[in-house]
Amino acid sequence: MEKKRIITGDRTTGQLHLGHLVGSLQNRVRLQREYETFILLADVQALTTHYQNPGQMKESIYQVAIGNLAAGLDPEKVTLIQQSRVPSIAELTVLYSMLVSVNVLRHNPTVKTEAKQCGYGDLTYGFLGYPVSQAADITFCSADLVPVGDDQLPHMEIARKLARRFNELYANGDELIRVPRALLSETPRLPGLDGSCKMGKSLGNAVYLSDDADAVNRKIHSAVTDTNRIAVRDKGNPDVCTVYAYHRAFNAGERADICEMCCGAQIGCVACKTRLAEKLNTLLDPMRERRAYYERRRDEVRGFILEGSEKATRIGNEIMARARAAMRLEI
Amino acid sequence: MEKKRIITGDRTTGQLHLGHLVGSLQNRVRLQREYETFILLADVQALTTHYQNPGQMKESIYQVAIGNLAAGLDPEKVTLIQQSRVPSIAELTVLYSMLVSVNVLRHNPTVKTEAKQCGYGDLTYGFLGYPVSQAADITFCSADLVPVGDDQLPHMEIARKLARRFNELYANGDELIRVPRALLSETPRLPGLDGSCKMGKSLGNAVYLSDDADAVNRKIHSAVTDTNRIAVRDKGNPDVCTVYAYHRAFNAGERADICEMCCGAQIGCVACKTRLAEKLNTLLDPMRERRAYYERRRDEVRGFILEGSEKATRIGNEIMARARAAMRLEI
Repeated sequence: MEKKRIITGDRTTGQLHLGHLVGSLQNRVRLQREYETFILLADVQALTTHYQNPGQMKESIYQVAIGNLAAGLDPEKVTLIQQSRVPSIAELTVLYSMLVSVNVLRHNPTVKTEAKQCGYGDLTYGFLGYPVSQAADITFCSADLVPVGDDQLPHMEIARKLARRFNELYANGDELIRVPRALLSETPRLPGLDGSCKMGKSLGNAVYLSDDADAVNRKIHSAVTDTNRIAVRDKGNPDVCTVYAYHRAFNAGERADICEMCCGAQIGCVACKTRLAEKLNTLLDPMRERRAYYERRRDEVRGFILEGSEKATRIGNEIMARARAAMRLEI
Repeated sequence: MEKKRIITGDRTTGQLHLGHLVGSLQNRVRLQREYETFILLADVQALTTHYQNPGQMKESIYQVAIGNLAAGLDPEKVTLIQQSRVPSIAELTVLYSMLVSVNVLRHNPTVKTEAKQCGYGDLTYGFLGYPVSQAADITFCSADLVPVGDDQLPHMEIARKLARRFNELYANGDELIRVPRALLSETPRLPGLDGSCKMGKSLGNAVYLSDDADAVNRKIHSAVTDTNRIAVRDKGNPDVCTVYAYHRAFNAGERADICEMCCGAQIGCVACKTRLAEKLNTLLDPMRERRAYYERRRDEVRGFILEGSEKATRIGNEIMARARAAMRLEI
């Protein structure tokens, strides 16, 4: 039986961090055996927020590609795709744009959040179309499944609606555009080192997968813990502690112990952080090795990206040819 | 000296008519000697309004292409381009979409008119982006000039702004994207046969360039004249007469005479219409011959379109390659 195809990816806006690892990278590594895996290096989507300053774009593309490989994705198994190299994604974006109203887009949570920051009218046209562009990203290659966290479900819903609408209008309901399904993954949201609710690429509160052991040590020791716990003899509350959230995510073996000791004031924050940092460094060490390997072989990485993008372009062009014919655009 | 390049075109939503002839086709025929002329068969733009029913699209593409050739455009001189065959137009549309706010688009007159009909929120995302897509249409091929009527100037202004913004952000102000200029043509707006202010493809009030002599006769004789002129002995008012508007546009030699006779009740409407119909048929006869020629040679027309689209694709891809490099998307 043919393997089902999944597509997933990252906006190329900087280094990958622990939040990506626990939220999606570990999942991808697990899924790559079972599924034909496409990883989109989403540089065009990155432009929706970084269009004014694309200076780091090339470096970010490499960082995201290498970050995925370092996490354990096998370049023989997965297809790395640079979004801007695949014309059919832009072509589908334009075609889909006829099939969705401004209102539907305005009510998408991601668009709403951005609109809250800059005002709806000052939103760029591109940002308003974020869900349209994303629909093209996940349908141009006939993906069966898209691994997403539940915060991504509204995007998935628009993508599925667009695919179905396209099929109804132009293909008598046949699945010319494959209607993708969400592969709901538990994507625990990792808090930032500063205790904020989310570790973010550009929030200055992240442990990057590219950090060396010293940096990880230093960052973890600076992390916010239970702010009510002043002295070691005070009992701690792991539920409000960032460091414990990391233990929960990355230190399954010790987390029960640590919880008990913290609640009983039997371990201090410094010792607890040291344990975490050690655990993280053990986890990150093989990734560092792979990263170093690929950093020395950027040409090889470039080859993977170009080859993957060409494969994606061929697949996308086939879909476009069928779409054009169905839409009576073939003369 | 190299010829300057112009781009112009038509949405592929039906037959061309007398309004197109006087508004742009005659102009194109005149300009094709002086300029390298690109004619866009705008099928993607046609979808902004015809996405629900593209059944006639293929036929419309041929009709618009043959209409242009029948009007006197020389396929050896001009480049016919099917918009949907040129990926770089879609790619540029997506890139430009980051550089313009929703508000700027909302205030574009074409968008406003459409929004008035269907409500702003129910506007499709594609229709809101009409000016963005049009900016891509006229800049993907480094056109110097765009022949437009003054109703098109707001579109031109957005296109020029987008090109300049792109150049500022990514090319240190160099003209990577050529900033197109409007070649303002007097495009007298021809009234419809029903006396409405505009002859329209889909308004049922048009004399099509493909109409035979009988149809032209019949249609002209049904045209609305000065409704206050009941009997032949009443004096007419040419200023409110549709038929006189046509004399003005197509019968320069006789129009002064006719005006005088109408005002003096020396010619009846039937006779006046007969004169006009004769004049129009004389004008249309050579076009009918060319149309018949190309209708018998659709394969040849198809060849022109495919060849022109390929040329446009090459030109567009070159621009995109330079744009990608400037935006640091080249890895």
